[in-house]
Amino acid sequence: MKPWEANIRNVTPYVPGEQPKEADVIKLNTNENPYGPSPAVKKAAQEFDTELLRLYPDPASRVLADALAKRYGLGRDQIFVGVGSDEVLALAFLTFFNSDKPILFPDISYSFYSVWAELYGIPYERPALDRDFRLRKEDYYKENGGVVFPNPNAPTSLALGLSEVEDIIAHNQRSVVIVDEAYIDFGGESALGLLSKYENLLVVQTFSKSRSMAGLRIGYAMGAPALIRALSDVKYSFNSYTMNRTSLVLGAAALEDEAYFQETLGKIRATRERAKERLGALGFVCPEPSANFIFASRPGTDAGALFEALKERNIYVRHFDGPRTKDYLRITVGTDGQMERLFEFLENYL
Amino acid sequence: MKPWEANIRNVTPYVPGEQPKEADVIKLNTNENPYGPSPAVKKAAQEFDTELLRLYPDPASRVLADALAKRYGLGRDQIFVGVGSDEVLALAFLTFFNSDKPILFPDISYSFYSVWAELYGIPYERPALDRDFRLRKEDYYKENGGVVFPNPNAPTSLALGLSEVEDIIAHNQRSVVIVDEAYIDFGGESALGLLSKYENLLVVQTFSKSRSMAGLRIGYAMGAPALIRALSDVKYSFNSYTMNRTSLVLGAAALEDEAYFQETLGKIRATRERAKERLGALGFVCPEPSANFIFASRPGTDAGALFEALKERNIYVRHFDGPRTKDYLRITVGTDGQMERLFEFLENYL
Repeated sequence: MKPWEANIRNVTPYVPGEQPKEADVIKLNTNENPYGPSPAVKKAAQEFDTELLRLYPDPASRVLADALAKRYGLGRDQIFVGVGSDEVLALAFLTFFNSDKPILFPDISYSFYSVWAELYGIPYERPALDRDFRLRKEDYYKENGGVVFPNPNAPTSLALGLSEVEDIIAHNQRSVVIVDEAYIDFGGESALGLLSKYENLLVVQTFSKSRSMAGLRIGYAMGAPALIRALSDVKYSFNSYTMNRTSLVLGAAALEDEAYFQETLGKIRATRERAKERLGALGFVCPEPSANFIFASRPGTDAGALFEALKERNIYVRHFDGPRTKDYLRITVGTDGQMERLFEFLENYL
Repeated sequence: MKPWEANIRNVTPYVPGEQPKEADVIKLNTNENPYGPSPAVKKAAQEFDTELLRLYPDPASRVLADALAKRYGLGRDQIFVGVGSDEVLALAFLTFFNSDKPILFPDISYSFYSVWAELYGIPYERPALDRDFRLRKEDYYKENGGVVFPNPNAPTSLALGLSEVEDIIAHNQRSVVIVDEAYIDFGGESALGLLSKYENLLVVQTFSKSRSMAGLRIGYAMGAPALIRALSDVKYSFNSYTMNRTSLVLGAAALEDEAYFQETLGKIRATRERAKERLGALGFVCPEPSANFIFASRPGTDAGALFEALKERNIYVRHFDGPRTKDYLRITVGTDGQMERLFEFLENYL
């Protein structure tokens, strides 16, 4: 080891799902939306004035924060935006989780949580989901340095009821509680309505899934002004201008088109329900899906081998090789046509 | 204080220059390029396929990293890209500066350095520039946890000679040395040529100034593969997909148009030289400018009052109210027309 290497931070990075180059891949591995963004986004892109790129963007991201505030009936001082919900969550960990006590999140959950905790040296504990992959709210009633969980959960797709979410927040008045609602538009009840009651609640959402804009990197947090201010201060201590001009303009345009948003959500939910039935008919079992993916297992079928066989046929899904997840595949809900190709393969394979 | 507030990270954020809304402002306050980006960027924007926004961008930013590698004659494994050089530097601090010994940077320098150090709890020392605002290389020969300095420096615009830069690197084989070359295209000699000799050197540059793309947020680091790998690992522990699809595509397009790049650089340098002379004729003194801004002071004239008077006439420059900077204004080099408006005002004011 070179002497200067001794001071390099030692991390084990998160591994994102593959982004294959081949055009004919059926890509059901990273929970993207199978439908493109709203025509309003296309129009805004065509009208975008590239001359403006010479100027820094608005560091406060007002055009986008205002559009979000309007959409969700909140004040602008209750909105924070970032480069995907990953950046929002990464900065929220850095801002709010500065206790000697461990933060709490489920053992089976978004795998980035432990990566952020390790990056910043935050102690953490991971209460186990029950055998049906359900989060037990009582596990979160003990002393802690913060709480974070996705709802619906990933990779299980299971939603937690709003009263249980509230119980967790109510029992944690000494900590910040982050509800990661990356998939909430596809099912489950948002904790947004609880913001008026709990100042320690931060709700995080994203444009990457339900708004078909993973490629633009937009995430946002909603919470009490004091939380948003603290998060903004840390952001301004990291990077003054995180959101570029195209994200601000195209993101705001997407929010104008509520009809398109509801239409694509409806299509994805309908495809999910049909896919769930087809999988059931093929002998798969899955926790009740509320997100835009299905966490499916087939007793007697090796999920790892099935994952590889699918990949060989250019159908990409995701397989997490953990002790409790290794028998499952996480399958993103695509178009009806893409799901049909998946089922054709499965019918032959099984 | 609420109990959950106790665990909030306490920071004093960086304050970026103002982004006024008025269209008729002469904006010489944030070192933006007065010329728009290359026509190649406009063309790429027009051809951009918004349907692709539904998919995540390439987490490795290959199209942009490859274009940079080609432009600078390096391997792709020697290039790291991020959301502006601010994100690149913020992640570099987090990656490389993990020693109990203080990192070193000049007392008058980019004010974000101390903000990042405070954010991450990195000890630091700030050797004073000499009375002519020159960096004394010998100040950087003592034991440290890392070294970072801009070349040319900001807000002074003074460049450090390449042999002095090399002396600093050569004397710091136990640390990572970051040379922040945000302004190098406007003057001074890049340390890039030293990469083949020093594995502990990281050179950071940006598209925000010389490439007229502050609004797109693109910065990059160049260094030995081991440094780039460590930086990438930390990035993948923070946010898998930092660069959105528009940044990748438009950034790569900008690099194709070397002729436009050289042409705008030539114009800005010529305007700078004329402006320096005009300022001199008006009684201003300034360190020899090598960046796209001039750090100017006029004995007997209150710089703070002049700053306010300029602002009242919609001419924005920057004033740093520190003990050694309070008598100076940092004036970005605009178009000849913009500079003319500035000089007209100054001739009346003085």
